[in-house]
Amino acid sequence: MSLPVHLVPSLSGVAAGDVVEVTGDEAHHAVAVRRLRAGSRVVLTDGSGTRAEGLVADTGKRVFSVTVAEVATLPPAEPSVTVVQALPKGDRGELAVEMLTEIGAAAIVPWAASRSVAVWRGERAAKSQAKWAATAREAAKQARRWWFPEVAPLATTAEVAGLVAGADLAVVLHEAAALPFVALEVPSTGSVVVVVGPEGGLTDDELAAFDEAGVRAVRLGAEVLRTSTAGVAAVAALLSHTPRWS
Amino acid sequence: MSLPVHLVPSLSGVAAGDVVEVTGDEAHHAVAVRRLRAGSRVVLTDGSGTRAEGLVADTGKRVFSVTVAEVATLPPAEPSVTVVQALPKGDRGELAVEMLTEIGAAAIVPWAASRSVAVWRGERAAKSQAKWAATAREAAKQARRWWFPEVAPLATTAEVAGLVAGADLAVVLHEAAALPFVALEVPSTGSVVVVVGPEGGLTDDELAAFDEAGVRAVRLGAEVLRTSTAGVAAVAALLSHTPRWS
Repeated sequence: MSLPVHLVPSLSGVAAGDVVEVTGDEAHHAVAVRRLRAGSRVVLTDGSGTRAEGLVADTGKRVFSVTVAEVATLPPAEPSVTVVQALPKGDRGELAVEMLTEIGAAAIVPWAASRSVAVWRGERAAKSQAKWAATAREAAKQARRWWFPEVAPLATTAEVAGLVAGADLAVVLHEAAALPFVALEVPSTGSVVVVVGPEGGLTDDELAAFDEAGVRAVRLGAEVLRTSTAGVAAVAALLSHTPRWS
Repeated sequence: MSLPVHLVPSLSGVAAGDVVEVTGDEAHHAVAVRRLRAGSRVVLTDGSGTRAEGLVADTGKRVFSVTVAEVATLPPAEPSVTVVQALPKGDRGELAVEMLTEIGAAAIVPWAASRSVAVWRGERAAKSQAKWAATAREAAKQARRWWFPEVAPLATTAEVAGLVAGADLAVVLHEAAALPFVALEVPSTGSVVVVVGPEGGLTDDELAAFDEAGVRAVRLGAEVLRTSTAGVAAVAALLSHTPRWS
């Protein structure tokens, strides 16, 4: 079995022999629910490329301490993939976030598309973003990621168009696109942006805005994918053409 | 909006001008729940490569008839992909079936892996298989597939090993495999088998049995994917290297 992973705010400057305290909900869950005890071997991560492995020295009510045995760091994987996900219906959003995190997305941008049935407004926007972020965090722990994905605030179409400036490749999935996936040249470094539309499809205005921003409309295959499946399929396909899968 | 799709047992010999009756649950759902009425345009499919488009002529309690305007057929897509899916926990099985159907799997084989937490036994096996089949059918309608995937009965490891004989490529996903995905030569025709292990991983005996049967252990990337995500990611990656995505 792999060791349990716990998220801490920072591991900056931590070295072997140091003692790191884990506090808050993360510690409460580990101690009260998972019954973590002194002597257990655990992995700590800051979700920003650093991991520490060590033994639990002591546990308290909402705290435990770890004597670090080993520290390691990894740079972010390249190419980095940002997925712009149109808000899907119901709990399909969290499902998409979960799978995009597993497959290795560097950032997830919730997008208020014209034809998204779901709407995030006012307080709901902050709450929903927090829920996506929590889903990404838990999925990243499960997936044992070194770099946890960022979940951005809800973006408008104009903001999405702005976001792709500087990307080495930006695509929007569109079943009627003339360009097939295999015609893409996938960069092996730098950054890629994948835009996934809502259940109801993209509007002509959205397609025009993306086109003007240099986003290429591309079709995956003959299959009709749900929005929550399309992102993970596209990212898997993209990465399978890069050194990340070699 | 795309036209609603209804599944009928057969469209063999049906031509423009014919009247086709849709009966049973399929008709009941359409008439009672979806409120299908005479004059509506619908698509009928037999899930075996044939589609008929036409107008609803009449509706009854558990029946409706369609005057066919147009009939078309398509051969199965190549390469065909069979996914052997180790039984996952909870409702992750149906989720996997849904996504594998969307992405275009030709067949889904539930597999009783040693470390599968879920167990299908006796009556439960038939019921669970029927549930997977119903999930595949609904997903295939949503995904507008011409060929609906077959859901096989629960297979043992020996049966899975037997199944791959004759496949043009057979792979088992394994995070510790020496062979990276990009080293695969994906055939553009014929048949591919993808074996997806359970949450607890594959046993040495399973790996040995597959190896002897000519199944190649392959790793996708550095990411740790859940079993329900791994299949769709692998199939998307495979198809993106074939003419099906061109």
